[in-house]
Amino acid sequence: MRATIMYRAGDVRVENVPDATLKQPTDALVRVTRACICGSDLWPYHDLEPTEKGRRMGHEAIGVVEAVGTAVRQVKRGDFVVMPFAFSDGSCPFCREGLQTSCEQGGFFGSSEGVGGAQAEAIRIPFADGTLFVLPVGEDHALAASLLTLSDVMGTGHHAAVSARVAPGKRVAVVGDGAVGLCGVIAAKRLGAEQIIILGRHPDRIALAKQFGATDVVSERGEEAVERVREITGGFGAHSVLESVGTEPAMLTAIDITRPGGAIGRVGVPHYSGMEAWGSTFYKNITISGGPAPVRAYIEQLLPDVLEGRIEPGRVFDRTIGIDEVPDGYRAMDERKAIKVMVKA
Amino acid sequence: MRATIMYRAGDVRVENVPDATLKQPTDALVRVTRACICGSDLWPYHDLEPTEKGRRMGHEAIGVVEAVGTAVRQVKRGDFVVMPFAFSDGSCPFCREGLQTSCEQGGFFGSSEGVGGAQAEAIRIPFADGTLFVLPVGEDHALAASLLTLSDVMGTGHHAAVSARVAPGKRVAVVGDGAVGLCGVIAAKRLGAEQIIILGRHPDRIALAKQFGATDVVSERGEEAVERVREITGGFGAHSVLESVGTEPAMLTAIDITRPGGAIGRVGVPHYSGMEAWGSTFYKNITISGGPAPVRAYIEQLLPDVLEGRIEPGRVFDRTIGIDEVPDGYRAMDERKAIKVMVKA
Repeated sequence: MRATIMYRAGDVRVENVPDATLKQPTDALVRVTRACICGSDLWPYHDLEPTEKGRRMGHEAIGVVEAVGTAVRQVKRGDFVVMPFAFSDGSCPFCREGLQTSCEQGGFFGSSEGVGGAQAEAIRIPFADGTLFVLPVGEDHALAASLLTLSDVMGTGHHAAVSARVAPGKRVAVVGDGAVGLCGVIAAKRLGAEQIIILGRHPDRIALAKQFGATDVVSERGEEAVERVREITGGFGAHSVLESVGTEPAMLTAIDITRPGGAIGRVGVPHYSGMEAWGSTFYKNITISGGPAPVRAYIEQLLPDVLEGRIEPGRVFDRTIGIDEVPDGYRAMDERKAIKVMVKA
Repeated sequence: MRATIMYRAGDVRVENVPDATLKQPTDALVRVTRACICGSDLWPYHDLEPTEKGRRMGHEAIGVVEAVGTAVRQVKRGDFVVMPFAFSDGSCPFCREGLQTSCEQGGFFGSSEGVGGAQAEAIRIPFADGTLFVLPVGEDHALAASLLTLSDVMGTGHHAAVSARVAPGKRVAVVGDGAVGLCGVIAAKRLGAEQIIILGRHPDRIALAKQFGATDVVSERGEEAVERVREITGGFGAHSVLESVGTEPAMLTAIDITRPGGAIGRVGVPHYSGMEAWGSTFYKNITISGGPAPVRAYIEQLLPDVLEGRIEPGRVFDRTIGIDEVPDGYRAMDERKAIKVMVKA
């Protein structure tokens, strides 16, 4: 089958690899109908050390179950499913609490040892019953793009909003205009935010953010951005700040624009070691929350809104390619020529 | 009048100073009937740079209102009051939300410019109506010691517990066996925690923690403490961790003993610059919350339990001195010969 392998920073190839197969009785085999490239895939695209074996890429997919192991009970051949970016056994204490990204036996597609990537024709799914969410529609559904976002970005934006305690009447700021930030705007609106400020500077993304419900745009950076947000929030900053970037400057901006007593929901994987502003968050009584989103738990909440068209997260995809064009897709996203690239089988 | 002044690390004196007086129409003048020495007073006791003018010390007191300015409406001469460690105008958005420690016009006794300290015979109270809480009992009340804790430590321990999301059925760990940690134990029990682990090694404090409701004691440190907490919490750590110390090792322990998806309530004023473990809190989806406690907001909630004897935070005082003995009191607390020292008029 064809699969995407990254060998070092900037070197992404689509190659023929042995077909994915069942290995454990709890596995399922999924034929990927749609996958995509994630903003977080750009981190190794920038800094992956050369590796002879390469790294299988991709952790977002929807597809059709082709086969299941003997111990799989809930999922069956022919099911159309969402594959969350993390696999999870569905039965450990964390899975039962809805924090599947801390599953005792869990891991992450495209990075855990022995698990493949989703930017491929097919993928083996560990703990199929715990991991996969069976959709009530068919693979050719018109909303396939939005369904695909339930595997990561929409659930991750939602996690940022929930972690930042977005609620009716709140002033919300979203740091970052990538696909996750844009889904954060959708989530904030869905949860009833009164004001939604998007911090970003790419015209296409800003336009989409406005369509998703952003009420204000701040395109300044650093101290100027902070001043601007304070101005438009009545002087104090936002109650809820969604940090969807993962860099230190983004987090520092998030801290500075959070109103005393407010909360930051962080979902940008932190690409910096420490946090010097640890003291200032204390004096302002800021709550910092978030982490890898338990998207598996969120699909059920978000799906009705997707199916009934109340939210359209699939609009973050502004380019669709075939599997063999994946290296072009990485380039387009890296050069900010695409917000998010969908890979269609 | 007599007042406590610190001139540099280790140099605390009680001196004659001009009597406290009203300065603003919103002021009250309070005769201090009981004050105390705070764990946080030991920080300048260790590291205050020499200062010619000296720093007025003390931010916890109960006392009797001797005079009020012309604009004071709620508080009157003769009222017996709690003085929270922060003063606050009672009318700004943060005061109205119950976050008086972020009051737009507020500040802190014993450290804000032009405001005196409570380890004195009397003290000027800015924004008397917003700051003071009038007690429904007289100054000679048998529970005066417990009422005094409402000015800081009991409210601060409660803030740690609330910030750490303590609730019925939760496993709770308290890092630090000082007066705030001990009040954190009281708060955790009051909020219905199922298990309360105290991390500390001073026999007198541990004994008190047990009487306050601690179910487990961990006297190990560092990695051993982490292992022990994991063992007694079923392998995963505590849902809620109260960090009442303010050092980096204490916070690192707090992070390591927090269960994935759990929360840390931090109230120990951070005496370290950055936080290297910023990444690990992300991967575990740990919520970090807390800061200077809005004790003014908590008095109303905690007072009935104090007056009806359901909680006895005043038991953290194990030494009572007069104003002239305050330097001895600092020494006793610094040498861990006293948990917390009360200064009685």
